[in-house]
Amino acid sequence: MESIFSEKHILRNAKTELSGGLLVEPYERPSRAEYIVNRIRDTQLGNVISPGDYGMSPIRAIHSADFVEFLQTAWVRWKEAGFEGEAIPSVWPAGQLQTVRPRFIEGQLGYYALAGETSLSEGTWEAAYESAQVALSGIDKLLSNESRGIFSLCRPPGHHATANRYGGYCFLNNVAIAAQYCRDNGSQRVAILDIDFHHGNGTQEIFYDRDDVLFVSLHGDPLDTFPFFWGHEKEQGRGSGTGYTVNYPMPPGTGFASWRESLAKALEKIAAFNADVLLVSLGVDTFENDPISFFKLKSDDYLVVGRDIAELGIKTQFVMEGGYDVEEIGINVVNVLAGFDSR
Amino acid sequence: MESIFSEKHILRNAKTELSGGLLVEPYERPSRAEYIVNRIRDTQLGNVISPGDYGMSPIRAIHSADFVEFLQTAWVRWKEAGFEGEAIPSVWPAGQLQTVRPRFIEGQLGYYALAGETSLSEGTWEAAYESAQVALSGIDKLLSNESRGIFSLCRPPGHHATANRYGGYCFLNNVAIAAQYCRDNGSQRVAILDIDFHHGNGTQEIFYDRDDVLFVSLHGDPLDTFPFFWGHEKEQGRGSGTGYTVNYPMPPGTGFASWRESLAKALEKIAAFNADVLLVSLGVDTFENDPISFFKLKSDDYLVVGRDIAELGIKTQFVMEGGYDVEEIGINVVNVLAGFDSR
Repeated sequence: MESIFSEKHILRNAKTELSGGLLVEPYERPSRAEYIVNRIRDTQLGNVISPGDYGMSPIRAIHSADFVEFLQTAWVRWKEAGFEGEAIPSVWPAGQLQTVRPRFIEGQLGYYALAGETSLSEGTWEAAYESAQVALSGIDKLLSNESRGIFSLCRPPGHHATANRYGGYCFLNNVAIAAQYCRDNGSQRVAILDIDFHHGNGTQEIFYDRDDVLFVSLHGDPLDTFPFFWGHEKEQGRGSGTGYTVNYPMPPGTGFASWRESLAKALEKIAAFNADVLLVSLGVDTFENDPISFFKLKSDDYLVVGRDIAELGIKTQFVMEGGYDVEEIGINVVNVLAGFDSR
Repeated sequence: MESIFSEKHILRNAKTELSGGLLVEPYERPSRAEYIVNRIRDTQLGNVISPGDYGMSPIRAIHSADFVEFLQTAWVRWKEAGFEGEAIPSVWPAGQLQTVRPRFIEGQLGYYALAGETSLSEGTWEAAYESAQVALSGIDKLLSNESRGIFSLCRPPGHHATANRYGGYCFLNNVAIAAQYCRDNGSQRVAILDIDFHHGNGTQEIFYDRDDVLFVSLHGDPLDTFPFFWGHEKEQGRGSGTGYTVNYPMPPGTGFASWRESLAKALEKIAAFNADVLLVSLGVDTFENDPISFFKLKSDDYLVVGRDIAELGIKTQFVMEGGYDVEEIGINVVNVLAGFDSR
């Protein structure tokens, strides 16, 4: 399988994450991508290709213009305001659906954020833009050639970002941008399978009213883990989108046997949807030793995951999401991809 | 004027505040109350009295049972979860009005918070409970005797706390609890004048649908300052409460002359309401040297503020809110009270 990767991911290199009431080194850090690309090269999985530039238009097809402008300018405006740390929101419009956008950058952070662990830092926008291009390059290549699978090694990840909010280490929703690109380039039905440990609330929200993009997610029960306020089974879409969002929350300690049962149900939904193309939000924070998660998958299990997905027989793009800083992240990601290739 | 004060305020002694992307010593710190009580004693303003205990019932008349239980148990549950810092929310239900309450304490913080600068720490509940008792003791004394003014030196402050959310250094809404106590003990019409630099969003929200409690606030324009998402002029109440919320937002750099014009309009509203009792949310963070605010009042101006309020001729309780850590906080608070007493 070919992979798309850009060294520019290192431009996203925040120094602080709000975690457990402390400012710590971010769990979402550059070494994550290095572990993965090194494992791809070590195992000779396939070519590693640099992305092209698809510009702003496919980003604007998903994200609101004011949100994009905020991301582009937030860091400079935060520094100009004289703040010493990285940009972290400290107040938000709790209990309000519609609010006036504040003028001052400190208030705008809360207006555009859904979580506060994710500092905005120098280079964040540039890396997020490049990450979206990695997703776009992958899907474009998949749609236009004979390969049945491709891997976009996106960093920063994307699935928590909504049309107008960032958080959970995500700024632009790479998989949603790629899904919309499919729709705008001939695909009638696009399925997104999110197997990151955390619920893909951003992707869900973006397509919640639509029946042309199926969103299916396996994740830790939001009663117990981030993002806490999205991902319940009863969330199934709205209007003509009803039934096109499917959530499988699972409790702390879930091991592979029971996780795989949910995967089988998810794959049945995707098969029944008769998708032209499948996009997989690939997180490997389901791993037993992930530092911030509570599932118990082992490295060999990821080979099975890749094989199970391949059985669908649908053109598939894997888009990198989470999985935190342990060396096995490279092994686990490549196991999914190699498992897929083996079928 | 007599003052109600409890040494137990020092139980609220958080070590960290999220500010400008850093964890700093909280601006809302014990020395604030000490500056004020010392100035009261030095100037022989009047007796300083310890509060009585009015129990949980008047607190429950304002705050939801689940929120109160959260405040009572959050610190212990946070520590039991193994977190090392003080309790700071890092994700919240952005863009949702109704959400399922998470089970895990980390998610519950975001469920019950409207801001993240305010760490929950050991002793916070005990201090917040005592602060509410300081407010209740003051209003009870005012209603039952011949004095026309009383000062409740509350700490922590209260006006940002809603029925079910904390933030902005506030946990229980002391002035709202006192206002409801008035209604439950014979007062027909209660006016609240909020002259803290920051909009009293919690008090506003608690009484937003009611015509028996008038809420009038002078504050920094929320486009430019905390709490950012509440306090616009167009917020005027709802249903039978329409017209009983009045907001006077003012821009950065506002000096006393123009601030006093807003005060005059506010006092006209209160006079027209024909209130039985007036509660003043007294913040002195309108001071020119306040470290986190942008108005330009000088110490002598506060004497005029007290005199202007006294001209209404209504029984008045002053309830302490903000004003941050400069020694002049004592001078400025006592100037308001002495100005009131001089008329």
